[in-house]
Amino acid sequence: MAGLESGLLPFEFDGHRLSLIDQRALPFSEVYFDATEFDNLLYAVREMVVRGAPSIGAVAAFGHALTVKRHGGDWSKIEADREKLLSTRPTAVNLKFAVDKVHEAARSALAQGPQCSADAAMAEARRLLSELVDANRSMSEHGLELVPAGAGILTHCNAGPLAACGYGTALGVIRSAHFAGRNISVFVDETRPRNQGARLTLFELMRDQVPCTLVCETMTSYLMSSGKVDLVITGADRIARNGDTANKIGTYNLAILARHFGLPFYIAAPLSTFDAHTAEGSDIPIEMRDQAEVLTLDGQPHTPAGAKALNPSFDVTPAELITAIITEKGILRAPYKPAIEAYLKSQYSMA
Amino acid sequence: MAGLESGLLPFEFDGHRLSLIDQRALPFSEVYFDATEFDNLLYAVREMVVRGAPSIGAVAAFGHALTVKRHGGDWSKIEADREKLLSTRPTAVNLKFAVDKVHEAARSALAQGPQCSADAAMAEARRLLSELVDANRSMSEHGLELVPAGAGILTHCNAGPLAACGYGTALGVIRSAHFAGRNISVFVDETRPRNQGARLTLFELMRDQVPCTLVCETMTSYLMSSGKVDLVITGADRIARNGDTANKIGTYNLAILARHFGLPFYIAAPLSTFDAHTAEGSDIPIEMRDQAEVLTLDGQPHTPAGAKALNPSFDVTPAELITAIITEKGILRAPYKPAIEAYLKSQYSMA
Repeated sequence: MAGLESGLLPFEFDGHRLSLIDQRALPFSEVYFDATEFDNLLYAVREMVVRGAPSIGAVAAFGHALTVKRHGGDWSKIEADREKLLSTRPTAVNLKFAVDKVHEAARSALAQGPQCSADAAMAEARRLLSELVDANRSMSEHGLELVPAGAGILTHCNAGPLAACGYGTALGVIRSAHFAGRNISVFVDETRPRNQGARLTLFELMRDQVPCTLVCETMTSYLMSSGKVDLVITGADRIARNGDTANKIGTYNLAILARHFGLPFYIAAPLSTFDAHTAEGSDIPIEMRDQAEVLTLDGQPHTPAGAKALNPSFDVTPAELITAIITEKGILRAPYKPAIEAYLKSQYSMA
Repeated sequence: MAGLESGLLPFEFDGHRLSLIDQRALPFSEVYFDATEFDNLLYAVREMVVRGAPSIGAVAAFGHALTVKRHGGDWSKIEADREKLLSTRPTAVNLKFAVDKVHEAARSALAQGPQCSADAAMAEARRLLSELVDANRSMSEHGLELVPAGAGILTHCNAGPLAACGYGTALGVIRSAHFAGRNISVFVDETRPRNQGARLTLFELMRDQVPCTLVCETMTSYLMSSGKVDLVITGADRIARNGDTANKIGTYNLAILARHFGLPFYIAAPLSTFDAHTAEGSDIPIEMRDQAEVLTLDGQPHTPAGAKALNPSFDVTPAELITAIITEKGILRAPYKPAIEAYLKSQYSMA
């Protein structure tokens, strides 16, 4: 399985050992974190060694397949570890989507013995990854029609190969446009407090020689009012049945500001991001992370001792602010609800 | 003259030596920077040893008075140094306002000899500072009527004693409300890339025991949509004749987002921030600072080698997004133009 070199996957799996690019160390060092042991896997997801909703889903799928194998036929242990894994990051639904699929595959084969169950789990994890890689590619091609020649594009957080396994979601569309010769230029939001834009998106875009410029979140209105931005595109962590979309904190700002300046705001996300069990945005749990992430800069305190901070890791952009949602099956536009329900129906009939 | 201990002034001046709190070192160390020598003064203003439009104006007034004294009656040298000082920070108008006042005072007394001219310059610098301290206090009292009991207040950058000399502008209003027992809580924007909110505003609010919480700029819509914010208040670096307001980069975002969520957006600024020579916002020069400020976190690189960044230091909020402007003479509301022209008229007749 390919590693970072190919620009495709943020992890390696040889059938036994699950090894993650430690995304916390990028762009300065390319080191691997061994997430084969279950406790290490929990740590890796919680502490964002791997991050990005689709990548979390893919890694968790292989991780859960390892759990099924590890516990043989002891289903109560498998269930308990599943619950622990699901609780690591509550907002993105891809984690639950992937783990549930692997879990179901394992359970369906349980009657044929623990080995068959483990094999079925592993096969399902591989199928999900392959589906995700294909989805990235299709999304990127569908999204191309939304990117005019010479476009200035603003993106937030990181939604490239590291986050999404394969070609990328929002960055997949951007990379497609670049390789199609659209002569784009990309403004990359720093993405406080974890700086995924500054550390990861710049890294991925510069590797592909896509013209890109880092900006702080404070600069959005300056950029938009000065005509430097033609469209905004981000990934997503969970999309409710009505189209309300949870994504990295700061996305909601961008959608409102884009609307104010008359610019399109696009989401790119695979089908596994749509959650049948979430009717609307207010039903999405927002992960609150440690305030230390806000009170420090790269681990160094930059506030007075005893200062307090708030650290919601996601926000929810209402569907009415989203111009279109780019998926592997095509481009959705408002009203989102019927289109999303049709997608969910076809997805569940496939399961 | 009082130093930081009293919470009033970000500098000390004993008639000869101009000594600035080095605001770059706060909140961790309280060290002074000697800006008596002209080159040190230029460095201090450019590199933000002292920052905040009113404080820059006050420091530059004393600095220019020292220039007048230093060059005796050599007016061409005084003029040349004046130009250099004015060019350090192009956006805020308080620098020019204060230096011009001191310059005029010196020139008016020139016929009576260099000593008289230097004395007149120094007297004018002292008068301007005293006027500014009084303005802060009046502004804070006028602004009180805009702060309801229990209000959640979002502020950006730093507009307290360090920035404004005395009670503060935006933070002056906030401090008044706190000391008046309004039971407020303050959300402090980190203010990327120089982190004045995280470093300075938290420091000033915590010293007064004002309940305060640090947030990243990415969190604005989350905060506003969850009902935690009742009003936004910031300072200003230059206000055009039509009310368009330049302030720290990120202010424009806040004004649009406040409007979207139906929240009032207030500016607090002394009369010296209004610029008779600027008809509208598009006439205000935006200072572009070194991209290294964006490419690093507290001096440490956090981006891939060779990355590029944009670093506009200010943006301009259109008057129509501003609910009210709090000044030492009272609260201005739209239409701003006639009210501002009346202010400017009275100001120039005082000169």
